[in-house]
Amino acid sequence: MTDDADPQAAIDAQREKHAHERDERVYEHTAGDDREGIPFVGAGPGHPRLLTVAGKELLEDADLVVHAGSLVNSELLEAYCDHAELVNSVGKDLEELVPLMRDAYGDGRTVVRLHSGDPAIYGAALEQMDALEHEGVPTYLVPGVTSAFAASATLRTQLTLNETANHVAFTRPQGKTLDAEDDHIAEFVGMGDVTTCIYLGTHAVADTMDRLVESGVAPDTPVSVVYHASWPDEDIIEGTVGDIGEKIDDAGYRASAMVLIGDAAAGAGYERSYLYGGWANQGDNDTETESPSDDD
Amino acid sequence: MTDDADPQAAIDAQREKHAHERDERVYEHTAGDDREGIPFVGAGPGHPRLLTVAGKELLEDADLVVHAGSLVNSELLEAYCDHAELVNSVGKDLEELVPLMRDAYGDGRTVVRLHSGDPAIYGAALEQMDALEHEGVPTYLVPGVTSAFAASATLRTQLTLNETANHVAFTRPQGKTLDAEDDHIAEFVGMGDVTTCIYLGTHAVADTMDRLVESGVAPDTPVSVVYHASWPDEDIIEGTVGDIGEKIDDAGYRASAMVLIGDAAAGAGYERSYLYGGWANQGDNDTETESPSDDD
Repeated sequence: MTDDADPQAAIDAQREKHAHERDERVYEHTAGDDREGIPFVGAGPGHPRLLTVAGKELLEDADLVVHAGSLVNSELLEAYCDHAELVNSVGKDLEELVPLMRDAYGDGRTVVRLHSGDPAIYGAALEQMDALEHEGVPTYLVPGVTSAFAASATLRTQLTLNETANHVAFTRPQGKTLDAEDDHIAEFVGMGDVTTCIYLGTHAVADTMDRLVESGVAPDTPVSVVYHASWPDEDIIEGTVGDIGEKIDDAGYRASAMVLIGDAAAGAGYERSYLYGGWANQGDNDTETESPSDDD
Repeated sequence: MTDDADPQAAIDAQREKHAHERDERVYEHTAGDDREGIPFVGAGPGHPRLLTVAGKELLEDADLVVHAGSLVNSELLEAYCDHAELVNSVGKDLEELVPLMRDAYGDGRTVVRLHSGDPAIYGAALEQMDALEHEGVPTYLVPGVTSAFAASATLRTQLTLNETANHVAFTRPQGKTLDAEDDHIAEFVGMGDVTTCIYLGTHAVADTMDRLVESGVAPDTPVSVVYHASWPDEDIIEGTVGDIGEKIDDAGYRASAMVLIGDAAAGAGYERSYLYGGWANQGDNDTETESPSDDD
């Protein structure tokens, strides 16, 4: 603690405050709007061109950027933040980060908090936002491209493929004790038509695959690992649940990777969609399957 | 068919070609790179500022943009495509779209295929890409922000929240017959710590919720629906599995919506992460939980 801020008490108070009703700003603003406060920006998977337009503009206008250290591609910081003060958040706890951002904002500086990927996926944005709000600093979220999407683009595939992969799961092993009750990876893979995307450090791939085999997943289930998706040193390692751990260890990488399990990631076939109006096939990404009569 | 292109034969040939080995370009390029061919660009959720920098540059440079009709916010087309010829893909099949894009590309025009959200999620990009590749036209994917991420940003929450929501599923009802064997929504919701994101037309919400109740999901399970996430007419409708269908019908919307089921979307509490080095907690979005020693 560097001063009088108490992030834990602030988090508790903010969560209590919002337990029964939404923050009014939920109804007043939409994602993407420019607004007051400290934005918690998704940096995207790494490539500077895969940042959103909003993220780019916010970074270019920032005086202080608190970023996720080595999780953010340094090329992105160089491209958009060369005029700003940069603070690496890795190794700093809330008791250090919250007063730092609060004081900079209070001094009239333009502050951006930069998370990797999308802040809604395995980020720790909300606890920082709640602590800052309690200190009187408005905050908001700016979404980003998650690394699973960069990985699928690199692999020239879709995470959903008609008749092959109907669903997508984002997951990771839970808890330090790796209690199997908290870990759904084998369940997702076992469904057979789910592309399972594991957000994982390369060092943990072998253990995670061993546990999958113990849980009954077939060792020959295809796995594609995209190391540092969309970074200059991106690499693709292909194998199976049975052998990918050893391949990753042999490659010697020690950083984050996207582990994709399932036929879609392995480049399997698919059935042409052919659906031009079935009610069940109208999501917001269904270019070919939207029924015009159901839309404006 | 407007000419000699046969998309189905092309798809079959391309899938056969890649059944046993990856396209070489997978190893030569990374997502986000500028390259030759027709890009299949994720437009993001709708807001023009939530398009990627790559997407913006590609659209601004395009002569012809084949877009997903009313699934793409017209403000985005106005912001970036006012100089380009626009073709709405809705209602056109592969036999029409493929020759159109092939011929434009062959004539030296700069062509962009614009899908909503991210093209890897419930898009039908790959079948178009395979058909074009077979016609000699190179293609590639540019990822985007999916509407689930815009919805969570609007709701000021994360799709994963420590101790509350450890996993995320993207899903939708499968098949015209709605065979329960093909539908995992109840399984995802039943896991208890999964944020289930259903990509769905508003007209199908009531039926889908009825089926969830029949499958044993508790009717008081919280549901947040974000209609047209990040669009000017975005709206938020909150309720439960038991009552959200009627609320949506009452609201009278007839377009795509993001249906979020689970405590995280409802704004429930969470436990502060407090994790600064556990191996299981190092994904590429773990700002606060990355162990510096495991990264470069």
